[in-house]
Amino acid sequence: MTLDFALDATIVKQLQRLAFLQYFLEVAAVMVSAFSGMLAARQKRMDFVGTYTVAFVAAFGGGTLRDLLLNRRPLFWVQYQQYPIIVFGLSLLFVYIPWISNPTHPLIKRLLTKRLFDFVDALGLALFSLSGVSYALGDQMPYFVASMLGVITGVFGGVLRDVLLAEIPMIFRTKTALYATCSFVGCWVFLISLLFNVSPAVAFYVAFTTIVLLRMLSLHYGMTLPTPQYLKQPALPSASAAKINR
Amino acid sequence: MTLDFALDATIVKQLQRLAFLQYFLEVAAVMVSAFSGMLAARQKRMDFVGTYTVAFVAAFGGGTLRDLLLNRRPLFWVQYQQYPIIVFGLSLLFVYIPWISNPTHPLIKRLLTKRLFDFVDALGLALFSLSGVSYALGDQMPYFVASMLGVITGVFGGVLRDVLLAEIPMIFRTKTALYATCSFVGCWVFLISLLFNVSPAVAFYVAFTTIVLLRMLSLHYGMTLPTPQYLKQPALPSASAAKINR
Amino acid sequence: MTLDFALDATIVKQLQRLAFLQYFLEVAAVMVSAFSGMLAARQKRMDFVGTYTVAFVAAFGGGTLRDLLLNRRPLFWVQYQQYPIIVFGLSLLFVYIPWISNPTHPLIKRLLTKRLFDFVDALGLALFSLSGVSYALGDQMPYFVASMLGVITGVFGGVLRDVLLAEIPMIFRTKTALYATCSFVGCWVFLISLLFNVSPAVAFYVAFTTIVLLRMLSLHYGMTLPTPQYLKQPALPSASAAKINR
Repeated sequence: MTLDFALDATIVKQLQRLAFLQYFLEVAAVMVSAFSGMLAARQKRMDFVGTYTVAFVAAFGGGTLRDLLLNRRPLFWVQYQQYPIIVFGLSLLFVYIPWISNPTHPLIKRLLTKRLFDFVDALGLALFSLSGVSYALGDQMPYFVASMLGVITGVFGGVLRDVLLAEIPMIFRTKTALYATCSFVGCWVFLISLLFNVSPAVAFYVAFTTIVLLRMLSLHYGMTLPTPQYLKQPALPSASAAKINR
Repeated sequence: MTLDFALDATIVKQLQRLAFLQYFLEVAAVMVSAFSGMLAARQKRMDFVGTYTVAFVAAFGGGTLRDLLLNRRPLFWVQYQQYPIIVFGLSLLFVYIPWISNPTHPLIKRLLTKRLFDFVDALGLALFSLSGVSYALGDQMPYFVASMLGVITGVFGGVLRDVLLAEIPMIFRTKTALYATCSFVGCWVFLISLLFNVSPAVAFYVAFTTIVLLRMLSLHYGMTLPTPQYLKQPALPSASAAKINR
Repeated sequence: MTLDFALDATIVKQLQRLAFLQYFLEVAAVMVSAFSGMLAARQKRMDFVGTYTVAFVAAFGGGTLRDLLLNRRPLFWVQYQQYPIIVFGLSLLFVYIPWISNPTHPLIKRLLTKRLFDFVDALGLALFSLSGVSYALGDQMPYFVASMLGVITGVFGGVLRDVLLAEIPMIFRTKTALYATCSFVGCWVFLISLLFNVSPAVAFYVAFTTIVLLRMLSLHYGMTLPTPQYLKQPALPSASAAKINR
């Protein structure tokens, strides 16, 4: 059962070469993930140690978990040590140089918009999700498991970041725009394309575009998953509601 | 020191064949663990992504942690991909079909009692704990470590579930019925039986029965571990108490 | 890039022999880490299961995470099963023997001071950090990654302890004395000494002393990292501040 849909080695290699070509995209995506960690750490009034650790976990947590589950070594951030060094430097700047964490220059403000960050983050979500699927297929995983590993790679950095902040992970909450869902849909677009013998490169680009588009549309139109049935009734007025809403 | 009590390969194989025979029990136990995750996610008003993730972690977290610690691959839910698919489907039904999450038909209500869930959960606790011990012994672990891995396999799904909910794990709280303790006692019944040359199959069934019985008795009679000495004095009336009780 | 500064096998062996010699130091450090977990569990009013688990995670969490990341087996606490057994016994005593958790005899009180615990904890921080660096170098990791693994080994027991308590990890908070920083500085003293061809044993002792001294000085003089720039403005007076300060 586990070997049904395995790809042959050439295709896997092709996929990995593709991943290599996306080097610059990767750097940008790592930086944006790390930045999401820094912002969260600031909100919790953490010091540099906390800021760097949360940024590190947000940037590398998903990939590290994937590598642990698939038993891959060296880990992503061990193989490319420039990544954690960049995150270290950025965290230092973020914590100690006021105009980095809170830019006031109008030009920088106009460049570093929330929309830009959301876009780069969507690129990262797409890239990491599909890298997770590719590695899982390379390890002969069945399709559903591969899609799970794709989503884990794409979103678990953010989940582990929120666990370190002692918060319920943001992507689990109702009324947040689609995130894991975009990753999941894109992974299946990729897998189904491969099933229909679409070339891996084409499948990759179609799936990549799907994830980025779906994410940006979902942010723009405030698309969320349908509210669970049992949450449609009015919220509980009691102590338990207070606990839930904290 | 680490090799003292290792079992020979035949016995390990027997134990694993036993585990295979308990297939249906396993499905039921996975479903009940997943269901505990769904209920907890509902209480925190999570969406489908959160519900499925918490259900997944509750069902597979303990076994995954065991496999990471023992360096076993493929992981349980990778080898049997039907399990995560079942949990995915159940989570969908739970979130979007009202009469699943909140059944109103009197017949269903009579069938799906808390007592039934507790019983299936106890079966799962026993099954997973003893599978953890067996695998650890198969890897030549010493006895105390094997008992730890048994307990981790049995109870850490629930612990990781509660970590994702940003709550203190339920089994760590005073005044909860015995849970990890049942697993620990059962693991040692199994280990001591093996030490006394009881056949693995008999040892397995005796230990299994011990865990299930002890758990059900503990629920029925409200048995807990003795309260720690230092908690016997009246609770603190101050801000720190409020923090503790939240 | 990853192989630049690798040590040869003899030196790695020397380092590991050093680590073996520090056996008694290790026992003391494990006990003190475990004790920090027990104290935290008591504050959260946990039962024995919670107390032992938190103590276990505080004592072995950092080393276990290191071993998972480096793919080393057997795990520290599997290889030396006496350690988890000692922690088990200590947790039992702590929970059920009043004069252990709250000693009243003046002689014991005079011996078991906070300063003593801080000192043994600093020894453990130094020992575990440098063991992490050594293992990473033995696995041919580049220098920055090795320093990260040193810090992770030294401090992540405490981080995971706080995650289980559903709290923001203590070492991430502003206004706590230097901890991860001492480990980081010491790791780099070790690495730079090796770069300058200092013998591993000398490098080890110099780095070890640096960590212990820096930690004790930092506690004595209340040294912290500089407050992040953006936290220098007065705290927010609103709901978000309440959330941050909880």
